[in-house]
Order: sequence, then C-alpha cells, then structure tokens
Amino acid sequence: MPFLPQHLPTLSDASLDILLAEDLPFGDLTTGVLGIGNLSGTMTFAARRPMVVAAVEDAARLLTRAGCAVEISAASGQSLAAGATILCASGSAAALHRGWKMAQVLIETAAGIATATRAIVAAARAVDPWVTIAGTRKTIPGAKALSIAALIAGGGVPHRLGLSETILIFAEHRVFLAASTPEAVVSMARRGAPEKKVVVEVGSVDEGLTWAVAGADVIQTEKFTPEMVADLTTKLRTAAPLSIVAAAGGIDATNAAAYVSAGARVIVTSAPFTAKPVDVAVRIEASGGGDTSTP
Amino acid sequence: MPFLPQHLPTLSDASLDILLAEDLPFGDLTTGVLGIGNLSGTMTFAARRPMVVAAVEDAARLLTRAGCAVEISAASGQSLAAGATILCASGSAAALHRGWKMAQVLIETAAGIATATRAIVAAARAVDPWVTIAGTRKTIPGAKALSIAALIAGGGVPHRLGLSETILIFAEHRVFLAASTPEAVVSMARRGAPEKKVVVEVGSVDEGLTWAVAGADVIQTEKFTPEMVADLTTKLRTAAPLSIVAAAGGIDATNAAAYVSAGARVIVTSAPFTAKPVDVAVRIEASGGGDTSTP
Amino acid sequence: MPFLPQHLPTLSDASLDILLAEDLPFGDLTTGVLGIGNLSGTMTFAARRPMVVAAVEDAARLLTRAGCAVEISAASGQSLAAGATILCASGSAAALHRGWKMAQVLIETAAGIATATRAIVAAARAVDPWVTIAGTRKTIPGAKALSIAALIAGGGVPHRLGLSETILIFAEHRVFLAASTPEAVVSMARRGAPEKKVVVEVGSVDEGLTWAVAGADVIQTEKFTPEMVADLTTKLRTAAPLSIVAAAGGIDATNAAAYVSAGARVIVTSAPFTAKPVDVAVRIEASGGGDTSTP
Amino acid sequence: MPFLPQHLPTLSDASLDILLAEDLPFGDLTTGVLGIGNLSGTMTFAARRPMVVAAVEDAARLLTRAGCAVEISAASGQSLAAGATILCASGSAAALHRGWKMAQVLIETAAGIATATRAIVAAARAVDPWVTIAGTRKTIPGAKALSIAALIAGGGVPHRLGLSETILIFAEHRVFLAASTPEAVVSMARRGAPEKKVVVEVGSVDEGLTWAVAGADVIQTEKFTPEMVADLTTKLRTAAPLSIVAAAGGIDATNAAAYVSAGARVIVTSAPFTAKPVDVAVRIEASGGGDTSTP
Amino acid sequence: MPFLPQHLPTLSDASLDILLAEDLPFGDLTTGVLGIGNLSGTMTFAARRPMVVAAVEDAARLLTRAGCAVEISAASGQSLAAGATILCASGSAAALHRGWKMAQVLIETAAGIATATRAIVAAARAVDPWVTIAGTRKTIPGAKALSIAALIAGGGVPHRLGLSETILIFAEHRVFLAASTPEAVVSMARRGAPEKKVVVEVGSVDEGLTWAVAGADVIQTEKFTPEMVADLTTKLRTAAPLSIVAAAGGIDATNAAAYVSAGARVIVTSAPFTAKPVDVAVRIEASGGGDTSTP
Amino acid sequence: MPFLPQHLPTLSDASLDILLAEDLPFGDLTTGVLGIGNLSGTMTFAARRPMVVAAVEDAARLLTRAGCAVEISAASGQSLAAGATILCASGSAAALHRGWKMAQVLIETAAGIATATRAIVAAARAVDPWVTIAGTRKTIPGAKALSIAALIAGGGVPHRLGLSETILIFAEHRVFLAASTPEAVVSMARRGAPEKKVVVEVGSVDEGLTWAVAGADVIQTEKFTPEMVADLTTKLRTAAPLSIVAAAGGIDATNAAAYVSAGARVIVTSAPFTAKPVDVAVRIEASGGGDTSTP
Repeated sequence: MPFLPQHLPTLSDASLDILLAEDLPFGDLTTGVLGIGNLSGTMTFAARRPMVVAAVEDAARLLTRAGCAVEISAASGQSLAAGATILCASGSAAALHRGWKMAQVLIETAAGIATATRAIVAAARAVDPWVTIAGTRKTIPGAKALSIAALIAGGGVPHRLGLSETILIFAEHRVFLAASTPEAVVSMARRGAPEKKVVVEVGSVDEGLTWAVAGADVIQTEKFTPEMVADLTTKLRTAAPLSIVAAAGGIDATNAAAYVSAGARVIVTSAPFTAKPVDVAVRIEASGGGDTSTP
Repeated sequence: MPFLPQHLPTLSDASLDILLAEDLPFGDLTTGVLGIGNLSGTMTFAARRPMVVAAVEDAARLLTRAGCAVEISAASGQSLAAGATILCASGSAAALHRGWKMAQVLIETAAGIATATRAIVAAARAVDPWVTIAGTRKTIPGAKALSIAALIAGGGVPHRLGLSETILIFAEHRVFLAASTPEAVVSMARRGAPEKKVVVEVGSVDEGLTWAVAGADVIQTEKFTPEMVADLTTKLRTAAPLSIVAAAGGIDATNAAAYVSAGARVIVTSAPFTAKPVDVAVRIEASGGGDTSTP
Repeated sequence: MPFLPQHLPTLSDASLDILLAEDLPFGDLTTGVLGIGNLSGTMTFAARRPMVVAAVEDAARLLTRAGCAVEISAASGQSLAAGATILCASGSAAALHRGWKMAQVLIETAAGIATATRAIVAAARAVDPWVTIAGTRKTIPGAKALSIAALIAGGGVPHRLGLSETILIFAEHRVFLAASTPEAVVSMARRGAPEKKVVVEVGSVDEGLTWAVAGADVIQTEKFTPEMVADLTTKLRTAAPLSIVAAAGGIDATNAAAYVSAGARVIVTSAPFTAKPVDVAVRIEASGGGDTSTP
Repeated sequence: MPFLPQHLPTLSDASLDILLAEDLPFGDLTTGVLGIGNLSGTMTFAARRPMVVAAVEDAARLLTRAGCAVEISAASGQSLAAGATILCASGSAAALHRGWKMAQVLIETAAGIATATRAIVAAARAVDPWVTIAGTRKTIPGAKALSIAALIAGGGVPHRLGLSETILIFAEHRVFLAASTPEAVVSMARRGAPEKKVVVEVGSVDEGLTWAVAGADVIQTEKFTPEMVADLTTKLRTAAPLSIVAAAGGIDATNAAAYVSAGARVIVTSAPFTAKPVDVAVRIEASGGGDTSTP
Repeated sequence: MPFLPQHLPTLSDASLDILLAEDLPFGDLTTGVLGIGNLSGTMTFAARRPMVVAAVEDAARLLTRAGCAVEISAASGQSLAAGATILCASGSAAALHRGWKMAQVLIETAAGIATATRAIVAAARAVDPWVTIAGTRKTIPGAKALSIAALIAGGGVPHRLGLSETILIFAEHRVFLAASTPEAVVSMARRGAPEKKVVVEVGSVDEGLTWAVAGADVIQTEKFTPEMVADLTTKLRTAAPLSIVAAAGGIDATNAAAYVSAGARVIVTSAPFTAKPVDVAVRIEASGGGDTSTP
Repeated sequence: MPFLPQHLPTLSDASLDILLAEDLPFGDLTTGVLGIGNLSGTMTFAARRPMVVAAVEDAARLLTRAGCAVEISAASGQSLAAGATILCASGSAAALHRGWKMAQVLIETAAGIATATRAIVAAARAVDPWVTIAGTRKTIPGAKALSIAALIAGGGVPHRLGLSETILIFAEHRVFLAASTPEAVVSMARRGAPEKKVVVEVGSVDEGLTWAVAGADVIQTEKFTPEMVADLTTKLRTAAPLSIVAAAGGIDATNAAAYVSAGARVIVTSAPFTAKPVDVAVRIEASGGGDTSTP
C-alpha cells in the first residue's frame, strides 16, 4: 500500500476540548448526583465486528484530556478482528464517563469511513494493485478533518482538499465559456497553473474523448457505467495515450472492481464519508469489582 | 406536529466562514485560471427526489457570505416533491463557485437527517399521534449543531443535548453502586436533581420492572424487541403506572410503528444522524445564455 | 452532600490562554524593565478568611501555562479556615508575575460564588437535609463555565444550563396562548417533551394551584414570601400531591431556611453569581531571601 | 466629564454568538413545544430603578442576531429614571425568547458596573471636578470587555488594561531587588520605559515619601485611610511636588470623597466590577393582544 | 493576464474583529480624553507612490465594522498612480480613529506584496507572456490569507497552499530513500497521487536531468544561476521534453527575466511576501472644516 | 541592557496548531506517498549568518506538537555566529516534515526582526547607553504577537501596544480641536489620564516647542532630520526641560546614532517589523545514515 497512515494528531487540542464542552461542560450530571465520581475503574474499547480502526490516537488524547490514563492497543489504519481490544482507559468514574461516549463516537465514525474505504481499496486493488482510491471533498460539514484522516487510514487519498489548490473543470465552469474551444480552455488552465494537472469532468464518452484530445491530463467521468469507462479508455489509448481516467459518481465497494477492470486509474468516491459507523463495544469495570458492557 | 421548526440561525457566522475557508480560502482556482470570475450567472438548487428540506436558511447565509444574492423558495422543515426549487442564487461566477458545493452539501446532509427523521415520525404517529421521536447525542463529531437542527426540522426532538443536563442512569453507572438497591439509587438521583425526570436504561424486562417499581420516571429499553417492550408496558400498567417507556437501540422507520404499538411513548434513535444525504440538483446558468446542471 | 464536585477541568486550555493574553500578552513590563525576570522565587496563595474554595485546579493549570510549577493544597469544594494554604507556585519572577493576578482573581471570584452557595446550602439543609439549591442561568456574561463550576463546588446544582434543554413555562410564553387552558398548555408541553419535567413559573398562590392541578410537575414561585409558599404547599398537599415547589426570586442565605420551612423542595437563586469575591492572600518570596505579601 | 463614551461596538459578533449558543443552541425548547414560535410580539426593556445604562448597543446587536428588530431609546452612559424605556424589540415569539434573557443580563450587568462607577465619580467630583476614577484590571474572568466598557460608560477610565503596557512597581517586584535603592529602581524603570509614568504601590506614608523623593511619578497608596493620604500629600507638596497620589484599596462611593479631600488625584477601585446588577424590567406583548411583564 | 483577481472577501469577519480588538479594544483613548469622539469627519486614503493596490475590500469591511461609512475608489489588483484615491471613509472621529491605522496597515502591507509581485510578473512576461509567477508558502506566520490574496492581486498564483495537497520531493525526503532509484521514487509518487504533477527540487543540472529522465513532471531548481537553468532546459529539450522547469531561490524583479529567458516556465519566489509595505497617505478632515494629512 | 527577554510562551498552543493546520492539515503528502513516514531521523537548525535569534521556544513547542522531540541550543535574544546550532529535533520523517518549514519560517521571521532591532539598539547605544528603541504598532497584520516578542528579544520595547492604553495626540486629533489652545488640549489629556504621559506628534520644530511649552511630556517628531531634532532639543533644554524627545519616521540602524546624538531619548521605529527574514540552515539526516541540508 503506497500511502502509509502516519499516526500524527489530526484533531487539534482545541477541537477535542470543544467536543467535550459541547457534550458535557460540567461533567456527567448522573455521575454527580449518584456520588460515584471519585470511585475508580477501567474502560475497555473493543471492536464489535471486523473493522479498520481510525482516530484511535485522537480518541486517546480526548480521553486523556477528560482525565483518564490511556493505553492504545491498535493503531489507526490497522485491521481488527471482532473482539480485538482498541484501547483501555483508567481513572475516576467521573473521568471515564466524561470521555466515554465522545471517544466511542469518534472511533465508530472514523472506523466506519476507514472500513468502507478499505473495502473499496481491496476490491479495486484485486484488479490493479496500483489503482488509487480518492475521496471527494463532500465530507459532512464540520467533520472534514476526521473524515479525511479516516479516509487515509483506510488506504485512500484525498481527491482535492479544496477548490483553491487544484484544477477541475466542471460543466458549471464551461457554461461561462461557450465561445471557447476545448483546446483553448485547456491551454488557459495549463498556462494559469502549469504545476497542476488539468482535470476535466465529463458526462459522455464523446465529451471525454474531446477533452483528452484537447490536452486534459485527467478525464473524470461523472456517473458512467463501467462499459462507458471501458469504451473511453479504449479510445484514449490511441487518441490521447497520456490522459488517464478517473471514474466518479456512485462508486462503492460493490462496483469498484468493474470500473478498474474498465481501465480507470483513479476511483473518485464520496461513499465512505457517509458510511455507517462501525460499533465499538465499551466495557466499564469498577476497580473494586463491578463490571458491565454495552451489549 | 407539536414541535414547529423556528427558522432561526443554527450555524454561527463564524462557523459558516470556517466551512468556506476550509474549502476554498482563495476562491476556486479553476474559475480563476479560466478568467470567468467576473461573468454573472444564476444557480438554482432543487430537490432531486422527495425530501424534507433543512438547513436552507444556513445555506442561504453561506451563499450570501460567499458573495451571492439569494432567494429562498422552501423553508426548513417543509416536505418537497422531486423537482421543487429550494433556492436560487445569483452573482458572479466567482461567487457562485465559491458557495456552490458547500451550500449543496449543507442542505443534502441536513435533508438526509430531516427526511429520515420525518419517516420515523410518520410511521410512529400513524399508530400514536403524540409519540415523541427523540434523537440521541450520537451525532457525527463536528456536526452537532447541523444534525440537531435537521432533526428538529424533521419533527424530532433532542433526547439529551449533553450529559450535564439530564439524568440517565446506565449500567455503566450502576457498576459503581453494587451495594445500593434500585430504590436507593433512584432516591439519590431524585434528591440530587428534583427538577429532572429520572431515566434508567435497562437490558431486560425484569430489570425494567424493577427500576420502574423503584421509582424511575422513564425506563429506556436498550435493544428490546417490540414484544419485550409490550411485555414491559403491560406489566408497568399495574406495577408502576406513572412510568413511561422510551424504546432505544436499532429503531428506524421500518420498525418504529411496532415499538409504538407495543406501548413505547418515546422512540430514541441515532439512525437519522447517519442517514444518507439526499441529493440536491444544482443548475448553473450564465447570464448571457449558457446553462448546465449536475445530472 | 449528594453532589460531589469532581475536580475535572472546567476552563479549557484555550480559555486560560485567552485570559493570560488579555492581561499580559508580552509578560509583565515592570518585571522586564527592572531586569528581575530570571530570578527565582515562590508564590503562596492562602485564604484570607474562611471560604469554600473553587477553581483551584483551573488556577493551577493557568499558573503552569504561565511557566510556574504548582502544588495544590486544597481541592475545589473544600471549606478552608482563614490562613489555610491553597496552593504554592514556584518559578522565575517573570513566570510568577505572569500568572499571579489572573490566578488570584480566578480563585477569588469562584470562591465568592462557592462560599455564597455553601451558605445557602447550609441554611437550607439545616431545615431539610435533602433540599436542592439550584443556580439560575443568570451568570455574568462570559463567566458561565467558571460560575457553574463554582456553584457545584459550593454544593449547588444548575437549575437549567440553557433554554434548549428544559421546559419552564413563563408568563412570557403564556401571553401567546391566551386562548388555551392550563390543562391544554401542560398537555402540549408534556407531549412535546415527555422526558422532561414541566416547570411553570407563577406569580400568585392561586396561579400556582391552578397550574399544579393542571398537571405541572414543578411550580416555580416568583418572588413569593415564605408565607405564600407555605400557603401554596399546604394547598398542593391535597390538590396536587405530586407537584413540588421551587421557590425563586430574592432568596439568599438570610431567608433560604424560611422558604424551606415553608415547604419548598428547591431553592432557585442567582445570588451566588454576583457574590463578592473572597480575598486570597498572596505572598511572593525571592529564593535568595526577600519576602512580601499583599496585606 | 472629560471622557465621553463613544457608542462603538464592544463585544464582537463572535462573542455575541457564543453567548447565544451557550444559552440556547437550538432555541427555546418551551417555545417550541408550545407551538408559539411563529406568533409575533414585542418586548420592551425599561429601567426598574434609576440607573446609568450600558451595553445597550451590544444588547441590541445580540437581539438583532437572534432575529428581532430593535429600536434603542437610551444610549450607553445615559442616566435613566425608574421606568424609562431602554429599548424595544419586535419579532416572532421564537426570536424574542431567543434573545430575551441574555440581552437583559448584558444590560443589567453593565448597568450595575456603570451605575456604581457613576456614584463614585459623582461623590469624588463633588470635591474635585477633575479627579479621575480608574478601574483596576480585577474584572470578572471572561467579562473584561463588558466590564471596561461599562466602567467607561459610567465615567471611569481603565487604570491599566494589562501588565504589558504600564509600569507599576509592587512590593512583589521589590522583593527581588533587595540590594537596590529606590533611586536605582526608579531610574531603571524610567530608562526602560521613558514614555510611561512610573507608578509605585506603597504600604505606608514613609514608604510613599521615600519613593516620591526617589522620583516616582505616581504613588499608589494601598489601603491607606484618608488621614494617611492627607499626611502623604501634605508631605509631598514640599518634598516631591511633581508626584501625584492615586489612592487604592477598599474605596467606593461611600468614602471616595474623603480620599479626594485628602488630596488623591486618582481613585483606583475594583468595586464597580462586582457591583450588583441593576434590574431591567422586561415586558413581552403578543401582537394580537396578550401582555405580561416580569414583576 | 490569465488570473483575474476576484474581489471576494479574504479575511473573515472574525479576523477583522480580532485585528481591531488587538489594537484598540476600547477605542482610541486619546480621542476619548479629548472629548472629540462624537464630532464627524472624513478620512481619505490615497496612494503616496505608484502601487498595485490590494486588500482594499478587506480594509473597507474593517472600517465599516469600526463604525465608518466607506466608498471604494480602486479595486484590489488595480495599478494606481501616485496620488490616486483608494477609498474614502466618513463617520465620527471615534470611528475614524478606531479604523484608521489598521486599515492603512492592511492596505500598505498587501500593496507591498502585490506591487512586488506585479514587478516580477511584468519583468518575466516581457520575455514570455505566459510564464507563471508562483509564490511559495513562506508567508509571514499569521499573515497567510492576506499574503496569498495580495499575491493573486499582483498577478501571481500560489505555488502550493500547503504540504497536504501537492507532491514536491525535496532532498530532505530522498535522504530517507537512499536505496531507491529516481525511477522508483517517481513511480511511487505517481502511483500514490496520479492526479498531481510530480515536482522534484534539485541542486544541480545533472540532478535535474536525472530526475526529469526518471519521469518528474516539473524540475524545481534551487538557487541555480540563469546559465544553469539554460543548460538544464537545453538538455531537457531532447532528454525529457515533457518536463518543465520551475526556477526557485533568490529570484525577484531584477533577475526574473534572465530566468525566463533561460527557459523557466515557472518562477517560484518568496520575495513578495517580505516586500516593504507601500505607503498610503491618509488625510482626515473635520466636517466643520479642519484638515490634516500624514505627510 | 535593561530589558531582558523572558523566554515565556508568546504564541498560544492554539495559534501554533492553526499554523500547522494551515500548512498541512493531513501531514506532508509527499512523505506519505513515498512511504517514508515511519523512518526516523534528526533535523538541525543552525544560523546561516550572524543573527539575534528569536521565537526559538515557540518553534520548539511547534515541533513538539508536530510529533518531534526537541533540544534547544540557543535562547531567544541570544546573538549567534554563523553556523551556530539553534535547535535539534528528532522523530519520524512524518513528524520532521510536518514541523520543518513552519518552525523555520517562525525563527527566520522573528530573527529578522530581532536582528534589525539589535542593530538599531547597538548603533543608538553606542552614543547613549540608556536610549530606548521603541517599536511602533505597525506590525504585519496577523503577526503582532510574534513581532513584538521578536522586538523585545532584540532589545527593543513596544512604543504602544494599542490605542486604548496610551495618549498620543496626532494632528489627526487636533483637526477636531481647531478652537482649543495647546495648553487646553494638554490639560484635557492630563486630566483625563493622569497616570499616562502625554505624547504629542509634531511636524516642525516650532510645533514641538509649542507643545512642550504647553506641557507635553514627550514630543514625538515625525520625519525630522537629525538637525531638526538637535534644534528642538536645544530649545527645549531651556524652554521645557522636563519634556523629552522621541524621534520617529524613517529611522533605522543607519541613522539612529545621528538622532541620538541630536538628543532624542527614544527612537520610535517600524523598520524591524518589515526586516528581511534571516536564513536558518536546516539539515535533515536519516537515522540509518542519509543526510541533506538546504544549501
């Protein structure tokens, strides 16, 4: 896998503190009224089913900021069997309840994205070990940092982090350029940004061919069938052999292989960002003996 | 519907500016290199399929901050047919491209949550028009404000906004109270927070009965079948007639009615928060004539 | 005391850094021009008079961020005799002067609130050991987190952390409901939020009786005399025995007992939030020998 | 009065949004469940007793951000009779309830500070129309901007906004300078910051005389009686006629005149910052007719 | 010029408010003590010497937030003769003094960057009208948004906005890859990020040739002389005709043309970011008649 | 040197995290695609030429937050010979590349300011060892904290941190006071702010004389020649011996001595804030052996 996750902090300290403050600015009221805050215990997070885990380091930092001591058992990007331990926290009941749910949701959300990414990566690379799985910028608003980190943990790369740094010519741009030929448009883009590849989104095979011949580096197909992609890549092989095809629109683990077989070198997908979270089992034990787990 | 959405701002100006800055701190590079930034045009958002729309006012404010003039055609909470217009923005191509995708993702995400919520509300209220659909606090980290606003737009209410303001006794609390009877625990909670209802999460019918008899105001069932809920509500009718049942764990639009038929007065669910976004069609037209739409 | 303070962080790191930056973005100019910044010394905080101390952990974190090493001698919530040491910091004169006043003001402000709360708690619980002292949301703007933490340290609980999480029906709501009966209003509230208690603020005994009979869980009396509260609680005993009375409006340590004797189960008060700060004596000593203290 | 308030914004938009978000991130739940959010009404703020009003413009901006239209009747710094209208807001019940209490608390808190300041100003200037009332930096943590603005509205000036911009030599500095003469210390300060006055805090008349003779521009007396101040100013008249005296420590409206009569040119006080808020009466009326006011 | 500035907001409202709060949280004390705050006047900004102006729209927004009414006479990116008016603000003396210096510094700083960029652009495009001037990421810490906006206003483009979105292989990366051939390294990069160009920084002509032959899209020369660049581009013309050369290291308006003549297609420079600010003349007039200007 | 730098944190943790997030929210993509992130190495920063170093402690904290271990070899304010080591960081290649450039730019920028300040200090103090070098508030927007800290590290002091804390009467104030005599204006200022010195900016010797005689504490000359300053100081010696002269406008290391010789007691300058950064050499070595440095 060419893109190794790096286990560096993703969410800033301030972001973690905001998550805690949004959820429990004054600790868990229930813990407070029951008078158990100063008792000590442990809390274990484990994979409830197979998953690619992510955001573990961020969750651990959040638990630390909530007052727990934490040991990490699985690094972000790692593939876990059901039942595998992810991390173990210890501390007062007040600290454990302060960090519990937010840490759990962080990992469940990120693992959902990472696991879905890994599934696409696996399906696609079974066909071509060097194909790239690129996540779009359509992350849930507010969850961009977490989502991109989880995408990377799953083996994907960001397609574009934003609009200010890449050239991707949509039909929504071309509507303002009705008088220009594709050659003129590509040339304008290349001159304006010679250090960037020129990517053009197209809606038909013919359109793809036209823009590749006009000089686009990457043809991004929008909602093509695999057959359409195959048609396009075949035609490009002679007409524009330096252009590559990035397939986008409705691609997930079920159909990624077909697109790769059709010749796409890049799979562009938003699917992982709205994947269902993957459940993490949490077990809290009182130091003196009690024990429970979320079933 | 007892809980009318209120169309007041949900995301602060600063939050909207951060979303824009994360996506395109210096405008759309593609628009820039193509030299089309100062041409003017319009951008129309429409429902691609039936949806309960949400975050429209926030999206409109975001577009305004990006430099567009905006007219809103559908208020958050409204149920739209496929094809219905949501809003129309006008301005320079630079402004339209600056706001386009982020505004679209805001509405698509929020509409996904609102539509899913409304589906559960509709299913549940077909059985009992006064049942409450309560969304948990398991929102995607970073997306809490948007998620809760969309939940409300869909007809739901927040179950708890956080831990510092409600009493919900989990098994994870009781593990620290092994020596106390349920009566003692409920009594402690009631004395500590007499203005709050005492909610207890339980894992079996017997446990539910025990805690209701011990005085809990609300028994929150965790992953009960509808049959188990029915069993519990039947027993409570004589044993603890003032207690109500809130059913939680794996409930969505497909099974909500069964839980309501079984006697649950509250449906507690996280499902809407990870609902798939609902597609919004965007059509950009150049003022001079060109036109395009995302297929 | 049912509500144990939990000694977890209240003010975020970012909040503490803002307090320091507001006060001395570039250190203490006086220390700088006198050339004493690198000399080392110690700084001791002690109670100048009896107090319930609070925000000690936050003040210690602030001093640490200012460059000091800190040892805490008294935990938030603890009752101190005059002269008792609260904390001791050591470090360079630059670090001591950087953190001194802001740490002192934090503790003095919080101790003022905690001490005033504890006085009400003591007076009230002399009559009824289980009565609740609830602080309103009328905290000084900008000082909410500190104020609520200090309230809890003093033995109080938050009445409501905000408007989005509790039901409290004011006359200011009812003015929009002129056509509805109290029964209808309570019923609407209960159906909309079945997991919350319905609290109604009233201005007369009759009004209180009416709303309790209509089903309100809690009658919040606004500026009643103790006699009025006694009259109401007597009447409720037969007319609405499940309703409880929360007395609000002008209550402090001097009259809390009378309200409790009159039957109030909850004392709602804003008084602690504007209590005078309680003085903390600060003594700075140079490591080589000099010594001083604020008289 | 030499220092006219300027009616420019004090609290940033972001600060106002945070205040609203802390209090009601999702609007007033009670308004929501009662289904009255879309009804329209008006809300009038009036002085419940004589006051110097402050933060009116900030409160009006907050109400505007909450969705109300606002008309201001009294500018910050103005002295109001009991009953005088401060502002009037109109809008939906949802908007009125969203902004009500926070706007009220802003004005009540600021008016408390401004009124207390004005009382000291009036008492002091009855003796010397040119005396300065300077507020210390001991503002409630988190409330600095509001407090200083209110101080200015009341006719005071900030003593020092922070430590990085003024020279004030405390005993806590001198403890690190045991080997230096007062002349040497003042000289160091003057050379290091020739554009600043050198202020020295002293604890006795003799100490004051010593430092004035050594060249201090301002002698700040800490907890002197008026008699001690008179003794010092008399002695300075011949010994150090260019030095002025700033009296600090326990001064408020009851004793300010005595300190001014004793010759203090500046009164340094923290008292206004912890003054009790001054009550603002709020009356909400439904557009159709209903009406209520907080008694 | 292919890259038209777009006149959309660059600095967020929150950023502008922070600039004002850093400089004068409570207005201009001098204006206050002189009692002139409520007098009205006008303030005119003009170019003191020829300049490419930038950040005008941001400065105008800042002045508006400070309480002024503003008319803009020159748009960012425009080339002004000495004496040309940039903007005119009117308002109270308090508002004018509140916004004056910060607005002036914003424009002076941005104009310095824009003017320096334009000089390089002009020199370079005299040789090749399509050459690109790319600003590095070495902006002054804290001033990135302003710097990049000014660069664009001057006709430049960002080289890279950050490290997470482009491939630029430094010697500092290759030191960890001692065992890999250039072909293997380029291939790894291309597979990992097929939508990005592979840029390699080199320190000698031979190194440049090696990496171009190995497949790099762009060879970034570090501190080459123009002769070295010419040597490299000549050799590449036959050895790797698809590679382009981006010249970096010590390039400014005095030598840019030589590098372009030598065949560089991109000029990479940090020079504009530390260009001296260009003076803006400010003239303030009292409405009644007085008048002054900064000489 | 009277003003010792204090080596306390200048940039908050949150500021450092923002700098990192702006530059590389998801780590260095190049490091990622090359698969070298987990290899370990060291990174050494050294002075490329003689410099007064600054912001070292901040840069070290930034590197630590990026995942490195750091040893500091030179404290801020220290004068370094070319080649001297500043700091050494060790860690994974991912961590080193994450922190590298931002830490380098921090130190280069700050060292530029500190070195330029020190040059003025040295030139000026060769004439008068007690002259003060004061930096204006014209720092690059966004870089205020860094700039002031570097100024102090270089031996300067802030002239004014902002407008709310000092009295400096510009012609731009006086235009609103056409009817007042200088005596009246100075008197108003002195009464309004008796704890501050009254500084007046003047444009001619006569004007300076007038205002000094009128009672100003400091005459700030705007763009005087040294001869004009000498003329003024000579005249003041008899006419207003307590007034001092602060020379401002176009002063840097080349002419500072002349102004001091002319009798200026304070040199007011903005020059250091736009000084060119001073280069820092960075050498990265792989733990196994590879090695490189930026030439």
